[in-house]
Amino acid sequence: PGVPRARGCAGSREVVPTCERYAVRRLPFARLAERDVAFFERLMPGRVVTGEEEVKPFNVDWLKSVRGCSQLVLKPQTTAEVSQVLRYCHERNLAVNPQGGNTGLVGGSVPVFDEIILSTALMNQIISFDKVSGILVCQAGCVLERLSEYLEEQGFIVPLDLGAKGSCHIGGNVATNAGGLRLLRYGSLRGTVLGLEVVLADGSALDCLTSLRKDNTGYDLKQLFIGSEGTLGVITAVSILCPQKPKAVNVAFLGCQSFAKVLETFTTCRAMLGEILSAYEFMDEKCMELVERHLKLSSPVADSPFYVLIETSGSNSTHDEEKLNNFLERAMASGLVTDGTVATDDKKIKASHLRERITEALIHEGYVYKYDISLPVEKLYDLVTDMRARLGQSAKNVVGYGHLGDGNLHLNITAESYSHSLLDAIEPFVYEWTARCSGSISAEHGLGFKKRQFIQYSKPREAVLLMQQFKAMLDPKGILNPYKTLPSAP
Amino acid sequence: PGVPRARGCAGSREVVPTCERYAVRRLPFARLAERDVAFFERLMPGRVVTGEEEVKPFNVDWLKSVRGCSQLVLKPQTTAEVSQVLRYCHERNLAVNPQGGNTGLVGGSVPVFDEIILSTALMNQIISFDKVSGILVCQAGCVLERLSEYLEEQGFIVPLDLGAKGSCHIGGNVATNAGGLRLLRYGSLRGTVLGLEVVLADGSALDCLTSLRKDNTGYDLKQLFIGSEGTLGVITAVSILCPQKPKAVNVAFLGCQSFAKVLETFTTCRAMLGEILSAYEFMDEKCMELVERHLKLSSPVADSPFYVLIETSGSNSTHDEEKLNNFLERAMASGLVTDGTVATDDKKIKASHLRERITEALIHEGYVYKYDISLPVEKLYDLVTDMRARLGQSAKNVVGYGHLGDGNLHLNITAESYSHSLLDAIEPFVYEWTARCSGSISAEHGLGFKKRQFIQYSKPREAVLLMQQFKAMLDPKGILNPYKTLPSAP
Repeated sequence: PGVPRARGCAGSREVVPTCERYAVRRLPFARLAERDVAFFERLMPGRVVTGEEEVKPFNVDWLKSVRGCSQLVLKPQTTAEVSQVLRYCHERNLAVNPQGGNTGLVGGSVPVFDEIILSTALMNQIISFDKVSGILVCQAGCVLERLSEYLEEQGFIVPLDLGAKGSCHIGGNVATNAGGLRLLRYGSLRGTVLGLEVVLADGSALDCLTSLRKDNTGYDLKQLFIGSEGTLGVITAVSILCPQKPKAVNVAFLGCQSFAKVLETFTTCRAMLGEILSAYEFMDEKCMELVERHLKLSSPVADSPFYVLIETSGSNSTHDEEKLNNFLERAMASGLVTDGTVATDDKKIKASHLRERITEALIHEGYVYKYDISLPVEKLYDLVTDMRARLGQSAKNVVGYGHLGDGNLHLNITAESYSHSLLDAIEPFVYEWTARCSGSISAEHGLGFKKRQFIQYSKPREAVLLMQQFKAMLDPKGILNPYKTLPSAP
Repeated sequence: PGVPRARGCAGSREVVPTCERYAVRRLPFARLAERDVAFFERLMPGRVVTGEEEVKPFNVDWLKSVRGCSQLVLKPQTTAEVSQVLRYCHERNLAVNPQGGNTGLVGGSVPVFDEIILSTALMNQIISFDKVSGILVCQAGCVLERLSEYLEEQGFIVPLDLGAKGSCHIGGNVATNAGGLRLLRYGSLRGTVLGLEVVLADGSALDCLTSLRKDNTGYDLKQLFIGSEGTLGVITAVSILCPQKPKAVNVAFLGCQSFAKVLETFTTCRAMLGEILSAYEFMDEKCMELVERHLKLSSPVADSPFYVLIETSGSNSTHDEEKLNNFLERAMASGLVTDGTVATDDKKIKASHLRERITEALIHEGYVYKYDISLPVEKLYDLVTDMRARLGQSAKNVVGYGHLGDGNLHLNITAESYSHSLLDAIEPFVYEWTARCSGSISAEHGLGFKKRQFIQYSKPREAVLLMQQFKAMLDPKGILNPYKTLPSAP
């Protein structure tokens, strides 16, 4: 994803409430009553938000694409408080929407109806950091960028980096199983998250907050909560293995004349850069146009149909530069790359900003239909080309970019405003196309509210049934983030 | 672990049946009848093993420490056959013991009573390998070493390497969540296994065999089966992400005068070798003595209380050697290391064999009490010292070695033969010690039969209850690998 920190987004027009735009029926949860609010006020005085205007930013997603109508935001500071809130809600049959930094891209982080919003904003304490092992333990509401700054001071980094780092919470990252820019090098959160503390729907706390690199004592329960988007439990604390801060980081920004050359450049670069390759991102020229037009950023390399951003991270700057230069020489000499620049510290920031801020540039265009697809790399860009041909003039822009090194395409389609007919032209076509190539309809964004009805394109029936069994077992009343992840009953 | 391939092990004495040695009661499963055997003979003619002598090797574990009394081994070749077997057993209430290469170290891979043994020995087909992505899909019964050879020919490696590679099956590795020698570099199977095909207790097949680096479409069901030791389902196929074969591999074998120096050497080496460090193993002088005495191997470095094996894997041999030499110079100059050798290709094999064959050397001593503990690295060796002091002359040898880079100690205690009183002196002391340091009582071997009653030392009550709920949901009759992983009812 590429959600930047505090910058404003698409204009000031009102967002249509989700329940009006989409055909979805409220489930028979209890309605919030005066006495409920009074209970929460007693439990956490001064940390209970009511009032339409105050609650509004929590009801609308960052993309301004979905809108709930919650009347209550709770801001617990401790796991005990989260427990008490959930025990009460479970008892009363009140639905709850757990929310981190509200930077999700599939409508998973805001309510659909009047769910109580349980915000982790005040659960922002670092619990411990061990400099020998690199293991960080912290509360779920820590902002990713804040953790990043804290760790860098000690010579470490978070194994996760994304455009939304200025706002997103680590608990939300884990609940989404966020991917981002460093996955190619450090692997997914399923490997780096060592432990979790989770509060279940009935308020009981599950302590799997171990800080061990290896632990094979029974089922790895925490895995079920990673990527469950708040539907099985509320993550309250995270233990995560952090790599050492690389001594040398280099960025190269390249232009390629075709997608075939982007692929061949990847194969060459993987072989020649080996263990120091830490990111291989691509974007098409349409992306570049939008970033230049809306954010006034300029490309260090011009006039190419495709651009590639390569990042290396290593422990020896001389060795790393030598590897990178050897690779660039080869890539230029063999015509894979027509233009390129290796970034100095200053340019480095500029080049990676170009990539990180594409999401932001897109929302300046109006309404954005976002797709986050995993595909075999060879077929990655065909989906963009096919979609462009299919939609013709009915879309403003069809652009493709993403984490090529992970086989992950971000396909984005923009239009002046939301339209049912354009959506019908895109879906289910995009999902059918993906399923034909055995791809995934959500590589890293999750299913949330917007993609849940399409789960069958990526999961067999038996798997969906099993998911429903897990949900029924862990949250029998279904109060945790309802209308998300799992498809609604037919 | 360190189980070698085909070499013989501890003498020919008879192994005491598990049900006699340990207080365990047979659960009320059906008894195998003639008509059952006849059914299986029809289903898979020629692949049904009966007869005490033929079944015996499947009843006894590699360590000769536990022994079941199964009368039947089934060798399916396809997932459909596994389905049919389990559907039948589920219907008939017959217990089943899934078995891979039978190299487990906690008694998880052999029956306790008369469970039917479901062997993956004939499910040994490679299904596909993609050279662009490095993704291998294969049946569960592929022997690790065979996969390794196949991949190396194509310029790739398995992200997993262990002493038992000549016998162990990839399906068994995944069911155990095996760690091994490469975890430090390539991470755990939870990150590298991309997909699984699993047959559930009732015979239904669950297809989560995706081959995508990233897939966030709902709960990651496959994780539940990784490390579940065959108690939740039978893994029939695996999709796994394989790294490129490193162009340069170097091994250094070092002697250190104290464990404090082993630790300091680790910190120094991690900083100086950075991304090319692929293993950091240690062993104490007792280990070395046993390897020399029983296997006639000689150490390349002499007279040190501790030995360290460092492996680097990288893409540029000049750069790697420079890094390794710089590190060694520093380590020697500062007195961290008193003696050391960088292995040439020939010595390389010898040095890593020393480490890999410790398990084998140990069983020449008689009976081995094996502990596989995760601890904060600073405390790792204190457990060995404390145990040695505690046991005094009642044990033959108390040795420590392991994957220091992962905080993983293998503590082994040898005696002429099994004795209850020695076991009582070791347990629960070893588990209490570990729990006091917030360690794990099983880092990589699993709980199997031998460790399951000690789960509470590493998992809170709520977590064990949740495990039991998962088991009840997925295997309501409890036919899959009974008496393993989960503690018996009090």
